Amino acid sequence: MIRVTVWNEYLHEKNEPAVAAVYPRGIHNAIADFLNEDANIKAGTATLEEPEHGLTQEVLDNTDVLIWWGHMGHARVSDEIVERVYQRVLNGMGLICLHSAHFSKIFKRITGTRCSLRWRDIHENERIWTIDPTHPIAQGVPPYFELEQEEMYGERFDIPTPDELIFLGWFRGGELFRSGITYRRGFGKIFYFQPGHEMYGNFYNENVQKIIRNAVYWAKSTFTCEPYFNGDAVPPPNAFVNEIDLEPHKEYGKR
Amino acid sequence: MIRVTVWNEYLHEKNEPAVAAVYPRGIHNAIADFLNEDANIKAGTATLEEPEHGLTQEVLDNTDVLIWWGHMGHARVSDEIVERVYQRVLNGMGLICLHSAHFSKIFKRITGTRCSLRWRDIHENERIWTIDPTHPIAQGVPPYFELEQEEMYGERFDIPTPDELIFLGWFRGGELFRSGITYRRGFGKIFYFQPGHEMYGNFYNENVQKIIRNAVYWAKSTFTCEPYFNGDAVPPPNAFVNEIDLEPHKEYGKR
Amino acid sequence: MIRVTVWNEYLHEKNEPAVAAVYPRGIHNAIADFLNEDANIKAGTATLEEPEHGLTQEVLDNTDVLIWWGHMGHARVSDEIVERVYQRVLNGMGLICLHSAHFSKIFKRITGTRCSLRWRDIHENERIWTIDPTHPIAQGVPPYFELEQEEMYGERFDIPTPDELIFLGWFRGGELFRSGITYRRGFGKIFYFQPGHEMYGNFYNENVQKIIRNAVYWAKSTFTCEPYFNGDAVPPPNAFVNEIDLEPHKEYGKR
Amino acid sequence: MIRVTVWNEYLHEKNEPAVAAVYPRGIHNAIADFLNEDANIKAGTATLEEPEHGLTQEVLDNTDVLIWWGHMGHARVSDEIVERVYQRVLNGMGLICLHSAHFSKIFKRITGTRCSLRWRDIHENERIWTIDPTHPIAQGVPPYFELEQEEMYGERFDIPTPDELIFLGWFRGGELFRSGITYRRGFGKIFYFQPGHEMYGNFYNENVQKIIRNAVYWAKSTFTCEPYFNGDAVPPPNAFVNEIDLEPHKEYGKR
Repeated sequence: MIRVTVWNEYLHEKNEPAVAAVYPRGIHNAIADFLNEDANIKAGTATLEEPEHGLTQEVLDNTDVLIWWGHMGHARVSDEIVERVYQRVLNGMGLICLHSAHFSKIFKRITGTRCSLRWRDIHENERIWTIDPTHPIAQGVPPYFELEQEEMYGERFDIPTPDELIFLGWFRGGELFRSGITYRRGFGKIFYFQPGHEMYGNFYNENVQKIIRNAVYWAKSTFTCEPYFNGDAVPPPNAFVNEIDLEPHKEYGKR
Repeated sequence: MIRVTVWNEYLHEKNEPAVAAVYPRGIHNAIADFLNEDANIKAGTATLEEPEHGLTQEVLDNTDVLIWWGHMGHARVSDEIVERVYQRVLNGMGLICLHSAHFSKIFKRITGTRCSLRWRDIHENERIWTIDPTHPIAQGVPPYFELEQEEMYGERFDIPTPDELIFLGWFRGGELFRSGITYRRGFGKIFYFQPGHEMYGNFYNENVQKIIRNAVYWAKSTFTCEPYFNGDAVPPPNAFVNEIDLEPHKEYGKR
Repeated sequence: MIRVTVWNEYLHEKNEPAVAAVYPRGIHNAIADFLNEDANIKAGTATLEEPEHGLTQEVLDNTDVLIWWGHMGHARVSDEIVERVYQRVLNGMGLICLHSAHFSKIFKRITGTRCSLRWRDIHENERIWTIDPTHPIAQGVPPYFELEQEEMYGERFDIPTPDELIFLGWFRGGELFRSGITYRRGFGKIFYFQPGHEMYGNFYNENVQKIIRNAVYWAKSTFTCEPYFNGDAVPPPNAFVNEIDLEPHKEYGKR
Repeated sequence: MIRVTVWNEYLHEKNEPAVAAVYPRGIHNAIADFLNEDANIKAGTATLEEPEHGLTQEVLDNTDVLIWWGHMGHARVSDEIVERVYQRVLNGMGLICLHSAHFSKIFKRITGTRCSLRWRDIHENERIWTIDPTHPIAQGVPPYFELEQEEMYGERFDIPTPDELIFLGWFRGGELFRSGITYRRGFGKIFYFQPGHEMYGNFYNENVQKIIRNAVYWAKSTFTCEPYFNGDAVPPPNAFVNEIDLEPHKEYGKR
């Protein structure tokens, strides 16, 4: 069972009828709903205006993969909660940042860059191309698929070179974008995926859902942390080199 | 069920009693045996002196992951069989190259380099360090583990920059090595792992076994090839841009 | 002084008046001409139908960077010459493959993949985006530039993950492409650049010229090979560990 | 002319006679001195206890490459100055972090990770291996070189996968380390290099000096920023697709 928490700032849907018409119960529930159709996933939700943004330490400790959607409310996310999320990622929680979460505090913290890009919102169509079809996140995804309308996000996307480039997005107006990319930080795996403007309903798209579902499986940590965190002080010089005795050890440790 | 074929040149064991004492039924059977303890894996074997080196088209078509061990017999492997294996890798078969398979025809074909390295065989001890503990191949592997004796393989290993660097090996005599690395070629995933000299019995080591088993799971293809191979001619310009009509199409295709 | 050899199959220009009208003295001379405007570069040419394709050992030994343009004549390039070029690349000669050289024997040898792609030739326009503006090859290149007409090359380009992704190409008809990428093999640096169809005169484009010129500077080897090739037998265990004496050294070496 | 500023916390040298004996004028001057022997480099210094740590906006604006050495004083570096340095890196200043600067605020900000590692200080010897001899930073550096004494830094080094792995360090006691690595952030290039403990005088080592000097050349920005920063608002849909007119443009921009 993979425990997912879908976080959404949940502001557009409450304040803009046009958005509410697309996602009546909010983007977070739209995502949690299709994830919960998978018997191996149990997805809950959390939003900005809940106490602690819904991200208490207990919630995070019981989350394998956190999904993040934010836009107009980035600045309202408290630095303390961002730090808490960041530490959980370093300790192995997966993180999936969607669409305008490219500009969230947590994504900037993880990338160490500005994460700036070009954008244009004219109901433009996008074609997403699969660049790495062998990647687990691309499992079952066709060589390309279309989104009839999406906000254009264009290069240069100011990010570190991704660990993996899985999808590239083509926009009709002349731009393109590294639309599906991965990073590792600490023991955590991170996936950024570009589609998901609040107006266009692309979280109902079959391929978008497939990709997010695949990313949940991929981002769930597979390693056993304990030896890395406990009882793993640096050893004295190895047993085979015990003749090293130049001077009494001054000090050794792990930080 | 993952269908594995373990290929071994099977020469040392037949001609050198000291090696036969370590691997009485050959390296291939030692590997197949521990893999077959996993209920999800069905491992068979193939060797150099069988007809077609045991690698008929039918065998390869029914192999999800091929494991390769070779050393003194590299030059005896026929170019035709190497081409057959290569094409299967491009079409999605996983490949795991062990130890002196760094110098095999198939590994050189895949890397496009000389794959040269330093070596020294003095019963030296090795410590293998886990560099990427989040990688599925490192699942359950400790921060480091020891091999009491192994042949030293040292840098500079003349290979392309690996897609992923999972393990580094430290040798007592002063050398180190990129001991666990991955590549993708076509639709196939490749893992190279350095331990496994014919004299030292390290295929009985618990961590070596764990790593090879993890690599089998990782290398098995997860994608659906069909749309990439059939009915996937390049489209005419996309439906949203059908106003393109500068000139009659001269030609288009896919190669 | 950087010594460049521009190799061109030189077939289209000799047989198709429409191509000859674009490149009257051949693509090779068009490229050599603009390179020779740089006082630090001395560019010569070589073509398919010359003896040894113009690529004698002496020519290659006196070439710092080889530029390759081929298309309809790939199969006519002799395997022996390809091997000779390949060995020079491994020993430090830079290599720049242009446009349909994606399918040349030398590029496939270096990548270890099929190098297949989608293509369409309808006088389509392309926009090239600079993804890594800090790369020396992108020096002075704007965030994007236009080519009014170019042959469409589209993903999935079946190549290994590039060491560096510098440019992405957007095509009006709905496709995109990793248009400027690098690899290292042995001691050689390789750059692939997608523009340059024989019909469209893009080797006269100011930005295309700037990129190829930058790539010449970048691909020229900066390292001193000698210690890697001569007198660099693997050492006995290091001086600080000379107490290693478990057994007489059986053997050591370098391959 | 490359303008370098060498920053050093300059605490050990002022408070510990044993360190002062090694670096009488401080580590910063030891580094600036050998850099200033190069006619193309002009190196100044700055230290923690100067006003603004010696890193005024004017100093940074006139610095092409900043070198950073810190250890016991990491926490005393003001967040405001770190932010100032960080912004300059994003805008194109090179950054070279040495030894215990792995734990500096600026390096953690750039990597987005904990940057933890193992360490042991027993006058242990280190062998540094050149993994990427084609890299400009490795120009003239032998296949390996020895440091008679250095503080051991061992894996797992908790960092993002480097853009380039140039050097690996072997330590006698059984550890190894990714000793020379690069990153890009924004328009800035970053090099981390592991040697340089305050006690061991390795900044006088010929190869260490060569590597730092090479890194200065490499880290100096080569690109022309202006088109990226000024007059580079996202364009309206491109001229070739001006028939796009589905709806009036709602908005477009660049962030």
